[in-house]
Amino acid sequence: MLKEAIYHRPKNNYAYAYDEKTLHIRLRTKKNDATSVTLICGDPYHFENQSWQYSEVTMSKKETDQLFDYWFAEVPPTFRRMRYGFKLANEEETIIYGEKGFFDTPPTDDTAYYFCFPFLNNADVFRAPAWVKDTIWYQIFPERFANGDSSLNPEGALEWGSTAPTPTNFFGGDFQGVIEHLDYLSDLGINGIYFTPIFKAYSNHKYDTIDYMEIDPQFGDKETFKRLVKECHKRDIKVMLDAVFNHSGYYFPEFQDVLKNGEQSPYKDWFHIREFPLKEEPIPNYDTFAFVPSMPKLNTENEELRNYLLEVGKYWVEEFDIDGWRLDVANEIDHAFWRDFRKAVKSIKDDVYILGEIWHDSMPWLQGDQFDAVMNYPFTTAALNYFAKDKISTKEFIEEIQHVLSSYPVNVNEVAFNLLGSHDTPRTLTVCNESTDREKLLFLFQLSFIGTPCIYYGDEIGMTGGPDPGCRKCMIWDEDQQNQELLHFTKQLISLRKKHQTFGNHGNITFFETEHGLLYTKSNENETFIFALNNQSEAISICLPMDLQNKVLTNAMTGEQFAANSSEVNVQLDGFGFEVLKVEHAYQL
Amino acid sequence: MLKEAIYHRPKNNYAYAYDEKTLHIRLRTKKNDATSVTLICGDPYHFENQSWQYSEVTMSKKETDQLFDYWFAEVPPTFRRMRYGFKLANEEETIIYGEKGFFDTPPTDDTAYYFCFPFLNNADVFRAPAWVKDTIWYQIFPERFANGDSSLNPEGALEWGSTAPTPTNFFGGDFQGVIEHLDYLSDLGINGIYFTPIFKAYSNHKYDTIDYMEIDPQFGDKETFKRLVKECHKRDIKVMLDAVFNHSGYYFPEFQDVLKNGEQSPYKDWFHIREFPLKEEPIPNYDTFAFVPSMPKLNTENEELRNYLLEVGKYWVEEFDIDGWRLDVANEIDHAFWRDFRKAVKSIKDDVYILGEIWHDSMPWLQGDQFDAVMNYPFTTAALNYFAKDKISTKEFIEEIQHVLSSYPVNVNEVAFNLLGSHDTPRTLTVCNESTDREKLLFLFQLSFIGTPCIYYGDEIGMTGGPDPGCRKCMIWDEDQQNQELLHFTKQLISLRKKHQTFGNHGNITFFETEHGLLYTKSNENETFIFALNNQSEAISICLPMDLQNKVLTNAMTGEQFAANSSEVNVQLDGFGFEVLKVEHAYQL
Repeated sequence: MLKEAIYHRPKNNYAYAYDEKTLHIRLRTKKNDATSVTLICGDPYHFENQSWQYSEVTMSKKETDQLFDYWFAEVPPTFRRMRYGFKLANEEETIIYGEKGFFDTPPTDDTAYYFCFPFLNNADVFRAPAWVKDTIWYQIFPERFANGDSSLNPEGALEWGSTAPTPTNFFGGDFQGVIEHLDYLSDLGINGIYFTPIFKAYSNHKYDTIDYMEIDPQFGDKETFKRLVKECHKRDIKVMLDAVFNHSGYYFPEFQDVLKNGEQSPYKDWFHIREFPLKEEPIPNYDTFAFVPSMPKLNTENEELRNYLLEVGKYWVEEFDIDGWRLDVANEIDHAFWRDFRKAVKSIKDDVYILGEIWHDSMPWLQGDQFDAVMNYPFTTAALNYFAKDKISTKEFIEEIQHVLSSYPVNVNEVAFNLLGSHDTPRTLTVCNESTDREKLLFLFQLSFIGTPCIYYGDEIGMTGGPDPGCRKCMIWDEDQQNQELLHFTKQLISLRKKHQTFGNHGNITFFETEHGLLYTKSNENETFIFALNNQSEAISICLPMDLQNKVLTNAMTGEQFAANSSEVNVQLDGFGFEVLKVEHAYQL
Repeated sequence: MLKEAIYHRPKNNYAYAYDEKTLHIRLRTKKNDATSVTLICGDPYHFENQSWQYSEVTMSKKETDQLFDYWFAEVPPTFRRMRYGFKLANEEETIIYGEKGFFDTPPTDDTAYYFCFPFLNNADVFRAPAWVKDTIWYQIFPERFANGDSSLNPEGALEWGSTAPTPTNFFGGDFQGVIEHLDYLSDLGINGIYFTPIFKAYSNHKYDTIDYMEIDPQFGDKETFKRLVKECHKRDIKVMLDAVFNHSGYYFPEFQDVLKNGEQSPYKDWFHIREFPLKEEPIPNYDTFAFVPSMPKLNTENEELRNYLLEVGKYWVEEFDIDGWRLDVANEIDHAFWRDFRKAVKSIKDDVYILGEIWHDSMPWLQGDQFDAVMNYPFTTAALNYFAKDKISTKEFIEEIQHVLSSYPVNVNEVAFNLLGSHDTPRTLTVCNESTDREKLLFLFQLSFIGTPCIYYGDEIGMTGGPDPGCRKCMIWDEDQQNQELLHFTKQLISLRKKHQTFGNHGNITFFETEHGLLYTKSNENETFIFALNNQSEAISICLPMDLQNKVLTNAMTGEQFAANSSEVNVQLDGFGFEVLKVEHAYQL
């Protein structure tokens, strides 16, 4: 066994509380090295005749990536505390692994050899709001979704969809427009809206906040926003707002005051100023987002500013009953601030969802004390590289996807914000080189995967567009110009996800090796969904590696049923074809 | 290169802020595999012609344990943010390693391939109080240190030292006794006292608290304690108290109330009661420390109790000016409580030291938001196994010690609480089988190592004793019965540690491979201390693996100086002998 590949350290994705009674334990081994792994576990204080008493629990291989296998076990320790180690075996040897290294047999004279989960304290359990797990998000860029009240149009606003978006033009999207199309969204089936910023700002994207306590007048007033939230809630749609706390806009009055009054400004400590007077060239002499002079970084360690931002966090929850906060550039703000932020907003409404924008490995923010989820860009990258760009093989895709899953606790994965595109990236259909077939496979994968999917406005009707500003076109409301077939397909997937818990977030996912195509299942004790996808133009046949003799299979898309007559079932897939089959009665390989 | 052995994940001991300007980066590789490692690092936003701009920083092999080498670099990123990866090379190949895996050459089209340290926020820096780094602790078990006021003796107290300690007998140690011997401690050279519990309790050890707001009457009153702290501070000695927040004592009135009134008790939620009425057999039907019915676990998630304990934390700092809290069974209490505790006590006095009792891997508590240090039992175990018990080889010892160092950030190691024994373990001299020679080597290693050493009362004068209660004998004050030579030796080591920053916590430690004996150096830019120790009874000779030609060497213990006449210097050591040599001018291998 390759000892150097074996990894476990209590905490993070390796040892955590799934809920107030259950621990999850993961162990990493070299790929295809151990053939079985057993968890050796017991109460730290349970000795008989000076010998530590332990039980053995079989671990299962849950994920496998390029180099490693990840073994998993779920255990409910009676007294909520546990010492544990691992027994790893293959044809050649059996070894024991604990905090103090490797042993031939499990030592029982002391528990110090073993790893320790000292106590399952409820206060430390990672716990996202219960509703999130079953949410299907829809992202709205308010300036471009719908113009419902032309009296609010910004000066020089262009006719809806009359021309291509630029970094600076306006089309007058507003809240009234959103309200008027809530039935469209209800009909689509989504049950959460993520709005990019709505606070008073200078630009069309509103990421350059001027006033965190005011609605941008182009969108409407507070009354209209309140009505919007109410109308959403009537339709069981949650509302999430976008907060830009890493930096302010250039026209944030407090920053303007510092620009004007320099060291005399009472707000000088709201920012990170390296020297006075402020200058922008060759690079700003104050901290900024990236090197953008118009986005001065806020000093969240300043008590006055911190309290102001915490008030902002509470205000929109308390006054407008919003359900979530998406936090821009969340990784560059201190952890201490986010801990305070969580406490503050959850004190107003305990099931507010907190979503951080982090593009890289995010484990430090997902410990239960800061965010409920992050934007799952590693998922995005893998899915686009496989389905849209055909850049990686099925094997590589499966490994990448499982690498992402293995990197986090299960309860974190279940609420990961799985987006395929956003206002920051080219439209998926454009990335697919305008192949609707590829787009459909992308949607099918996204909507059947673990986590909470998010649809970027207009993707469901086949809108196209390159990177910002191309991806920020006006929403197309003329049904003749919408891809109705894609829309219908998206609705069907959403409906399947909502109807079948196993299809969505409540099924265990398993990937299978195939010669061609992608094969995975989602299952619980009652049923299994089989997903067979072909991301190539040639037709293929996939032989299902499970005994289905005498099982009745249902085509989930058509409702058609057929009985499997032989133990070997082959699924025929056209180029870019797919099949979703449902089998009653749990099927475990 | 063995890819499966290569490990890095931003956070913990692998990527952290050493101070407000400096990042430390570690990488793990298979032992003796890579021959050089270079850190590839740059600002996340620094692109030129769409190509990410990075620099290269040589990493040094800082630690090596049984299976792995650990490479280290210190970098001060100009804008406090960094993307980074690693270039690993050996004779066969050069590979690049980043968050997205392995590459042949450093990709520059995107930074997503790399690891991310998004922003060095001052609020998140792990920062123990500055004074701790130069502290030498002395642990006092108050019942057994000195009886200065016999009027306070508990009923049935025995004459000082007249008999062996038992789990229940009393000898009347008190604060007045400590005050009377502060000059002894000053003369010894220690500058911090850790008192095991002093609050009102039933037992002689006082870990079964009855009232967290009262001094146990056998020790004196609050006035006497105030005087004790003042007298300590006069002598530049810090005072640390022991808080038992995991569980209360059986006679804690609130627990008595629950015993009596069951579900009707207003304090029922201060504990974790599984069913009423409470019963103790066969195991308690309420949570306890281990399975001890008389130590009911406190429910730190109960707001009322939590506020009470936070008040306790603040009270003794505010009213008595204590300098530190040692937290009993700290690992079994929720992280959320400890975060609140840190904020509470540091709001009263910002340089209070917080020390957790944790025996296992403690990284989750040492992130800067909870503890400043933990009791370093992995150090204890390695040192005793090598010096006292002769159970492991020099190679194993060096690997274990370096494994401990590699497991934590440098700033955490610098304040680790390095004990050799305590009221919970047999006396070191007894573990040494009463060999004073071995004991001296232990002290020499402890007092020249990274971290803050703690001497258990009486070890310095050669006291013996087995596990509790044997290790809790009355302190011997009759000089004729003290081992004066050992005392003198301890004083000399303390004095060297205090006089020479390099000897103590401000020198870099390097271990060398030898045929016999243990060889390590502590060095800074100005000087190097060479430590050669022989833990065997046979005389040995160690050839120093550094060119010392024309250097003047000073014997740190005797002051004797001699010039090295040849490039090869051999150190002759008697059985259990040692040599500490000082060389001016930095010497780097």
